[in-house]
Amino acid sequence: MNVITIERKILEKNDEVALQNRTFLEKLGVVAINLLSSPGSGKTSLLECVLERLQGRVAVAVIEGDVHTDLDSQRVARYGVPVVQIVTHGGCHLEAKLVQDALARLPLERTQALFIENVGNLVCPANYDLGEAMKVVVISTTEGEDKPLKYPAAFRNAHALIINKTDLLPYLSLRVEDLKRNARQVNPALVMFETSCVTGTGIAECCEWLLGRTSVTP
Amino acid sequence: MNVITIERKILEKNDEVALQNRTFLEKLGVVAINLLSSPGSGKTSLLECVLERLQGRVAVAVIEGDVHTDLDSQRVARYGVPVVQIVTHGGCHLEAKLVQDALARLPLERTQALFIENVGNLVCPANYDLGEAMKVVVISTTEGEDKPLKYPAAFRNAHALIINKTDLLPYLSLRVEDLKRNARQVNPALVMFETSCVTGTGIAECCEWLLGRTSVTP
Repeated sequence: MNVITIERKILEKNDEVALQNRTFLEKLGVVAINLLSSPGSGKTSLLECVLERLQGRVAVAVIEGDVHTDLDSQRVARYGVPVVQIVTHGGCHLEAKLVQDALARLPLERTQALFIENVGNLVCPANYDLGEAMKVVVISTTEGEDKPLKYPAAFRNAHALIINKTDLLPYLSLRVEDLKRNARQVNPALVMFETSCVTGTGIAECCEWLLGRTSVTP
Repeated sequence: MNVITIERKILEKNDEVALQNRTFLEKLGVVAINLLSSPGSGKTSLLECVLERLQGRVAVAVIEGDVHTDLDSQRVARYGVPVVQIVTHGGCHLEAKLVQDALARLPLERTQALFIENVGNLVCPANYDLGEAMKVVVISTTEGEDKPLKYPAAFRNAHALIINKTDLLPYLSLRVEDLKRNARQVNPALVMFETSCVTGTGIAECCEWLLGRTSVTP
């Protein structure tokens, strides 16, 4: 039994399917965004804010990944967008094959942006390419400045970092500049946003950046 | 290649080593506590509060688990307790063998309570027995009421749940009773504490409970 070989084979197989997903989505002109974060950083709330803001401007679809429950797809479905829930039943990350199966159930010919909300886990999802156009990592202001250094893989592979729950900053000892410096140390190219789903801060900037990455004129 | 068989073998092997650890620790009268949570829920801050309170009352040792960096063991070492840092280099959980190697580097004959701070991850660590006497799961008030339903394994196997960062409750929409109800739905036997490392709320109760589980008279 050689566990490392097995793991490499799993990742190689995943990369093959991810490439199929990427080619398929690019051909259709769908920009897929893989959302990564710890549990409870506010990915779904952010998605709700973004969906509300993009309504009528961009055709959006959503894939929700969770270990258990379809609570998140229920929340997202209220915004009238097509959504598929993947329940991993204990699995700690989404894989390209799960996403491929979900893609088949979405009206992609009418979709411009596809949000894939990964399982809440800052470790394992970072290793699995899903065929997305970009990764966006979300961190809550309550999680501390050190997380990019402790969980570098998620930050290293991301296009953007969203620092969420900024409304709580007055009640925390967190120094946003230290968090940003640690994130930049891991990935100098990270585009960074500061957002709050309570006050709405930063949501417009996030959405404009996302629109700029799709074929839709902002 | 049969991935499920490999996974079962890994877990079986882990369970064997965990049993060795458990037997070894019980023989020495060391009560080991496996701390599980998402990244940024405040495990290390809680540990610092507990170490301060238990100083001079109980002989404590600590094993710190992190994907990268030894930041947490540096923090803990300031309290004058023996600490070993395990860096998993990408690994998403602690395993019994890693803990076994760490045990050999600790003065266990002089230790009454051993805290094992697991990798910040609410999914994978739940599947790996380390040989601990009990699991304690920590959740931050900022993470939302739904986490026990979404990540049931961590809650199902735990002896206690610590709801941390209660100082932020006035600024959150979280309903603690809903969070507790969801946790109880997964594990009716959970002992629950509400704590804040900022105000010190609940730390004494946590420590008394921990002392009650060791051979030390509270």
